[in-house]
Amino acid sequence: MQLTILGCYSATPRTLNNTTSQVLEINNHMFLIDCGEGTQVQLRKHKIKFNRIKHIFISHLHGDHFFGLVGLISTFRLLTREADLHIYGPKGIKEVVILQMKLADSWTNYNLIFHELTSNKSELIFEDEKVLVHTVPLSHRVYTNGFLFQEKEGDRKLKIDEVKAANINVAYYRKLTQGFDVVNEDGETIKNKSVTKAGIKPKSYAFCSDTMYKEDIVPIIKNVDVLYHESTFLEKHAHLGPKTKHSTAKEAATIAKLANAGTLLLGHYSTRYDGLDAFKEEAQEVFDNVELCEDGKTFNF
Amino acid sequence: MQLTILGCYSATPRTLNNTTSQVLEINNHMFLIDCGEGTQVQLRKHKIKFNRIKHIFISHLHGDHFFGLVGLISTFRLLTREADLHIYGPKGIKEVVILQMKLADSWTNYNLIFHELTSNKSELIFEDEKVLVHTVPLSHRVYTNGFLFQEKEGDRKLKIDEVKAANINVAYYRKLTQGFDVVNEDGETIKNKSVTKAGIKPKSYAFCSDTMYKEDIVPIIKNVDVLYHESTFLEKHAHLGPKTKHSTAKEAATIAKLANAGTLLLGHYSTRYDGLDAFKEEAQEVFDNVELCEDGKTFNF
Repeated sequence: MQLTILGCYSATPRTLNNTTSQVLEINNHMFLIDCGEGTQVQLRKHKIKFNRIKHIFISHLHGDHFFGLVGLISTFRLLTREADLHIYGPKGIKEVVILQMKLADSWTNYNLIFHELTSNKSELIFEDEKVLVHTVPLSHRVYTNGFLFQEKEGDRKLKIDEVKAANINVAYYRKLTQGFDVVNEDGETIKNKSVTKAGIKPKSYAFCSDTMYKEDIVPIIKNVDVLYHESTFLEKHAHLGPKTKHSTAKEAATIAKLANAGTLLLGHYSTRYDGLDAFKEEAQEVFDNVELCEDGKTFNF
Repeated sequence: MQLTILGCYSATPRTLNNTTSQVLEINNHMFLIDCGEGTQVQLRKHKIKFNRIKHIFISHLHGDHFFGLVGLISTFRLLTREADLHIYGPKGIKEVVILQMKLADSWTNYNLIFHELTSNKSELIFEDEKVLVHTVPLSHRVYTNGFLFQEKEGDRKLKIDEVKAANINVAYYRKLTQGFDVVNEDGETIKNKSVTKAGIKPKSYAFCSDTMYKEDIVPIIKNVDVLYHESTFLEKHAHLGPKTKHSTAKEAATIAKLANAGTLLLGHYSTRYDGLDAFKEEAQEVFDNVELCEDGKTFNF
């Protein structure tokens, strides 16, 4: 599982700070999460192949999370994309994209499939053989969802000595990795767990931005391996949190602790601060394993 | 008159190439012309003060000319702008901006005044004491206007020896610079032209992008000092011009010659070409005074 931060600052793009966008590579998927203005240039800078992106998840319709979307859709067309593109985001996202295409008299030569979200409860919005994506309802000034990306339990691994000792025909090995009990050459039923062990532990990633402190999300993201939680403010501006519906680094850390997350990634920093160290320090008063997102940084988990 | 090229490439923003946007400084105005994605970052890079921009002219609603507009409007709000902002562009521009603001539940704290254009004839869209702006109807795949920016005739200059010899009271000097005849201390009427000369020659700039070759615009831009005319293609791709409704460098030069322009600026290059020299060479087969726009370049006229 690899996460590339294309942008992690709030409000507006600046010469050196990009607004929110991330690429999550998980089980051969390349999921784009949020798409602030300039995201397509960031994708080019980081040499991410445009045609690998088939699903785009938009948390909410504030400009710093989605003003780059229509440009990216338009560029896909110029690159003669043919693959379907799925867009998940709040109701209204379709209207605004379609209106701009209509005004430009430009239409995509690929299928553009909108999945508009309206629920205030966590829901499954994507599933295939290997990955699940659920929404994480957040609390912000407009309707907003985070997203929980989860690998499914992978194939079990054979304990090869035990499998041989149990006299199992090779033809049944695939069934064993799939978790089934099998009958051996002597007609005996062999319990799966006696000859296999768990495969690679499935990974999970939760993206939670933008939101004020909201404990309700803890059960949804419980035991997540990596949690990105917005931390717009430091403690000295904690009073701005409820007003602007954003969180502090310490609040992000509290959610990470309650959710028993593996690692906490901080981001969506207000540009009023000179450096990022204080974000990490304040979060670590509550939760140890904290990393700072920075534009262009890649995390491997 | 100073022109700063923020972006001059066609189609999509890339790591090193920005799409169309220019800032024209003329008689203390700072006019923004077109606003491709990333324009606000280009403005920051070139240290152009956001609050000096009070008028934005959008040629047409293709993404490479206007996808940066809503982000800029949104950033003006975050910068607590108070001054009115006037936007001139094709019908539909208001709907798309307002829709995005509605979806973001964000409203400007300054007046946003739309001047939607629908005419296919050149019309006066801005005038104050010193400057005029007319549309230049172009021929592109969607409704498109270029813009002609003209300084008005400035104050006349006194021929001071002649003024003194004519025995004119100092109180009348202002009237002389304004072009009026005056009565001297001896009661004689003094013809204005006998004691004044023309002031600084008023300058003019025409922005013509995007368009296929269109001779109809020549009378509108006749004798313009500086003509920016799109040159998407070189001669070897001239056949693409009528199809995509773009021009070649040679066609741009032909318009410059017919219009008796002072200087021709080329831009809106297709990114299919390796360098820009051939654009200049091909244009100069028809018209001598050719300059190449490049992102970040400033021209003083």
